[in-house]
Amino acid sequence: MTIVQDTYPASLGFPFIEGGGVTSAQGFTAAGVHAGFRANPHRLDMALVVAQEPCPTAAVFTRNAFCAAPVRASRMRLGGAIGKSYGTARAVIVNSGNANAATGDAGMEVAEGTAAVVADALDCAPDEVLVASTGVIGVPLALDPFRQGVPAATAKLSRHGGTDAAHAIMTTDTVAKECAVSFCTEGHTFTVGGMAKGSGMIMPDMATMIAVLTTDAPIQAATLHEALRRAVDASFHKVTVDSDSSTNDTCILMASGAAAPDLAPFARESEAFEAFCRALTQVCMGLARAMARDGEGASKLVTVNITGAATAADAEAAARTVANSPLVKTAIAGRDANWGRIAAALGRSGAHFDQEAVSIDIMGLPVCRGGLAQPFDEAEALRRFEQDEIVLDADLGAGAHRATMWTCDLTHDYIAINADYRS
Amino acid sequence: MTIVQDTYPASLGFPFIEGGGVTSAQGFTAAGVHAGFRANPHRLDMALVVAQEPCPTAAVFTRNAFCAAPVRASRMRLGGAIGKSYGTARAVIVNSGNANAATGDAGMEVAEGTAAVVADALDCAPDEVLVASTGVIGVPLALDPFRQGVPAATAKLSRHGGTDAAHAIMTTDTVAKECAVSFCTEGHTFTVGGMAKGSGMIMPDMATMIAVLTTDAPIQAATLHEALRRAVDASFHKVTVDSDSSTNDTCILMASGAAAPDLAPFARESEAFEAFCRALTQVCMGLARAMARDGEGASKLVTVNITGAATAADAEAAARTVANSPLVKTAIAGRDANWGRIAAALGRSGAHFDQEAVSIDIMGLPVCRGGLAQPFDEAEALRRFEQDEIVLDADLGAGAHRATMWTCDLTHDYIAINADYRS
Repeated sequence: MTIVQDTYPASLGFPFIEGGGVTSAQGFTAAGVHAGFRANPHRLDMALVVAQEPCPTAAVFTRNAFCAAPVRASRMRLGGAIGKSYGTARAVIVNSGNANAATGDAGMEVAEGTAAVVADALDCAPDEVLVASTGVIGVPLALDPFRQGVPAATAKLSRHGGTDAAHAIMTTDTVAKECAVSFCTEGHTFTVGGMAKGSGMIMPDMATMIAVLTTDAPIQAATLHEALRRAVDASFHKVTVDSDSSTNDTCILMASGAAAPDLAPFARESEAFEAFCRALTQVCMGLARAMARDGEGASKLVTVNITGAATAADAEAAARTVANSPLVKTAIAGRDANWGRIAAALGRSGAHFDQEAVSIDIMGLPVCRGGLAQPFDEAEALRRFEQDEIVLDADLGAGAHRATMWTCDLTHDYIAINADYRS
Repeated sequence: MTIVQDTYPASLGFPFIEGGGVTSAQGFTAAGVHAGFRANPHRLDMALVVAQEPCPTAAVFTRNAFCAAPVRASRMRLGGAIGKSYGTARAVIVNSGNANAATGDAGMEVAEGTAAVVADALDCAPDEVLVASTGVIGVPLALDPFRQGVPAATAKLSRHGGTDAAHAIMTTDTVAKECAVSFCTEGHTFTVGGMAKGSGMIMPDMATMIAVLTTDAPIQAATLHEALRRAVDASFHKVTVDSDSSTNDTCILMASGAAAPDLAPFARESEAFEAFCRALTQVCMGLARAMARDGEGASKLVTVNITGAATAADAEAAARTVANSPLVKTAIAGRDANWGRIAAALGRSGAHFDQEAVSIDIMGLPVCRGGLAQPFDEAEALRRFEQDEIVLDADLGAGAHRATMWTCDLTHDYIAINADYRS
């Protein structure tokens, strides 16, 4: 298992901090422990992220009607309304191995009990503790492992605990996902970092992603929420069809302000806020691309770029339809430059265009021009398919809008992983 | 390769005619030949279905923006407007191996040239010949094989040629798909039959289905079109997410009236018309279920029944989302009664319901009640998974609307088939 570092997108201009993660920003500590949710005693299965002080916090939660107990509990703490989740928090506790979803009133009791256990250990209010769970759906979650694990995690909390925390939230992930960037504004250096889990995100209903993000910039909760929504739209929402709709999807961002305790909070639309938004977006993109790259059974990260769309919605629909096409994804697994499948996906996406105006490139090779096959060197295409990242470009010739989506190829291993996930 | 016969749905009440197909109705002949679209000389690759006389004909075509040349050519012959395709036709010619899609003006010339070749052989007008193609996208289709194949097929035309025709339109299908039923009304016995191809229909963009249907009932073209739309909505549209949106999807229905030449055409809303609609729907369902059962790499037919939905749209959305869930489909491949994946799919479908009101059964075993796990016998579940058809029932507890969708499981073979389709 290695930590994923990503250089994309260079255009945002922030170098990733080597080894950066959820504890890179000042004012945060974290730990990952084996609490007992999983049988293997060597596998970390509970993460705790703690702010020195209660701090402004924003979150984006799933809209799934079957949403999990921890989502309901955390959403209530941050205002209760779907789409308007922000307030104050001190800690985030995450367990893996059990999603505490479809568990009814008993599940809510466990989610609330978990917050109480953490509040006891940290000597804070239970309302200041956010909870998240990931794993199998429909199985009762026990409170006992928290009773053992939380004191152990509290004792281990440190500025170096981010990587353990990132490992503790993994399910079918094959690598831990964490990154961080720094940016300078208002005469100070600020940091944004985070960790995420989610490797089953390639397909719509596999999106059980959890991300915990931290920053030491001074930002009020409502402003923080605006920044988070923008960043999530440009990153996690570009990987999954419905990152906002699995039972447990949760993305939490806490702002300690610890890098400049005396500075006034960044105002909306200020230069400082825009710099923060760019840095946050880069962190989210890094984590989102790491998820796509680590897609269940994936051998390739796939980037789908749509240009020339008549509207932003058309660009989005076209990119999403291509990125979700099992035929396109299996063709890439088979190193097959079968652009006809891309054309068919574009055609059924609902985007408006004339097929005679469409151009398609695979890894920079023109394979379709004016809606027609363009002769290309199959051997050269095979060579380019050896790259880790496969880039598909389609221009619809209908306007000036563009969109990008990330996905991965669809391989035998995807079936193997999912045919017997419970066993 | 065997012909699929299906007993579902018994409630429609028409027994399938043994060995029935596209030539079961009076007034039609058919043939299947090897014309040379495929390299293997033993593989039939061109089908011709001919009516004794020009007869009322209705069709449903793809709405894909990248629609193929034969779709454009056939749609023009039947009125030109999307969604309003009916008129008069004498013959349908179908080739497999090449979709003649994304082939530009040259592709249109070949489609028109094909109609002219058939018109020559049958001594009819080229406008009376409908064309359909299925196979790989973006490769020029040659006219020469038609010049060889059409005279050969014309010479072989017979009332017994339906099965050869059904074989000739197969691509990745593993079985030919044909069926027919008879019904009595107005003192006469009438027959509806047809053939279809399409095994890659499980996933949204794999819907390259072609169906040719015939009847000897007397029905005018506009009425025929209404019946066809109803039947397609209840059958082919319940198998694929977008059966109307691949590049080549085509469903053609011809009515010879030959079973009762002196009878007036069935009027809309007459008892005779309703009987015809039921019979047609049963034929389409038989073919649609055969497609799902023959899904690429499939080992099981999967039926998803939704009840208790608040609206018809909710029922449809819930059924479709479950049927298209790769997680549900891989779980079935793994004989895993993982109902949490069904719950998650229901939750993100957009259907309105309270999770506390949801019941889920897998093969008749209650696995979820009131949104909570229901203990069940895993060994018994495994036994029931041995059946060829897996039935999933979900009641949303929110109303009285229901919907059914058909799909198949998602296996390793799906990947193997699609990773190197072109090679």
